[in-house]
Amino acid sequence: MSIDFSRLEKQLAFIKEIDKEKQIFRQTYIADGTRKENDAEHSFHLALMTSMMAQYSNEPIDILKTMKMVLVHDVVEIDAGDTYCYDAEAAKSKEEREVAAANRLFGILPEDIGSEFRSLWDEFERRDTPESKFAAVMDRVQPLLLNVATNGRAWKEHGIYIDQVRQRIAPVKDGSVVLWEYLNGLIEDACEKGYLK
Amino acid sequence: MSIDFSRLEKQLAFIKEIDKEKQIFRQTYIADGTRKENDAEHSFHLALMTSMMAQYSNEPIDILKTMKMVLVHDVVEIDAGDTYCYDAEAAKSKEEREVAAANRLFGILPEDIGSEFRSLWDEFERRDTPESKFAAVMDRVQPLLLNVATNGRAWKEHGIYIDQVRQRIAPVKDGSVVLWEYLNGLIEDACEKGYLK
Repeated sequence: MSIDFSRLEKQLAFIKEIDKEKQIFRQTYIADGTRKENDAEHSFHLALMTSMMAQYSNEPIDILKTMKMVLVHDVVEIDAGDTYCYDAEAAKSKEEREVAAANRLFGILPEDIGSEFRSLWDEFERRDTPESKFAAVMDRVQPLLLNVATNGRAWKEHGIYIDQVRQRIAPVKDGSVVLWEYLNGLIEDACEKGYLK
Repeated sequence: MSIDFSRLEKQLAFIKEIDKEKQIFRQTYIADGTRKENDAEHSFHLALMTSMMAQYSNEPIDILKTMKMVLVHDVVEIDAGDTYCYDAEAAKSKEEREVAAANRLFGILPEDIGSEFRSLWDEFERRDTPESKFAAVMDRVQPLLLNVATNGRAWKEHGIYIDQVRQRIAPVKDGSVVLWEYLNGLIEDACEKGYLK
């Protein structure tokens, strides 16, 4: 065979690299409460949610682009690790760690795909387009649902207050007023049940 | 609030249900060899691969449709369990178990989304369109890459022969001649290294 597989091999190297997302554990528990969720599982969940919930976006979105965005949004954590969203200390160094990770990880890919994924990640972080606003909605809705499903297990372990969750879900309103209204009902209820302080 | 959340609640019930894919373990090991992979992780991997490998499809494909297809293709295993692809005995009852699972699981969703996902799953199983042929390519390439990454661990545990893998990857040719050529090189090499009998 004389096929040039050099482009394919760069893609396969990236595919092997992102396997590491299966070992990056988050603070949220899976719905049955038996263990914490990893980034690959979280991203799977967001992609499938995006494929069926675009109707709730405040603005029309490109669904394919949004699905790609949620699939790559945590790739940087392979190098930078997961930063718990309520950990103010770790948040200080988060950006620097993640930019270095993005340079290395998206650099494994052929230039055109690496640039596309890097742009999607930058856009996700900026949250200034309909797609990135909706991706942020998915990224906030999913762990909240898992927290509710596990009677607030991760919230209780970290002693989270309802106002911290309110602040965390504030960007949901920018992407989806409907889901923001719904989540507010969920966290009021969670607070009454003692899942949140 | 007077918003009717009944449609949303059906979607959220499905989103919670598919969390169970995180506990459906496959025979393949993740790339670092520490444990077996689950369906959610496998589907994440296929969706991200699809988003960047459509160029290798023999025929043009609708990428969004193919990504949705790979994201829902293993949902039925929540009820039907994972059937190892080289287990001939379990294969006999696989279809019946999976159809019952599809009826229940896609039935949780609002009718329009449930029908769409059910059609995608049926199409994936039939393998008679450019999208389903390419989804099958992704579904065969990914575990093979993980087997190679782990020095053939799952193959060795089950005493798999190279001819079984050749038969397993035969449908890859229908979806992607390029990837089929590449995989053939990989399995020849795997056999030489003793990963396959």
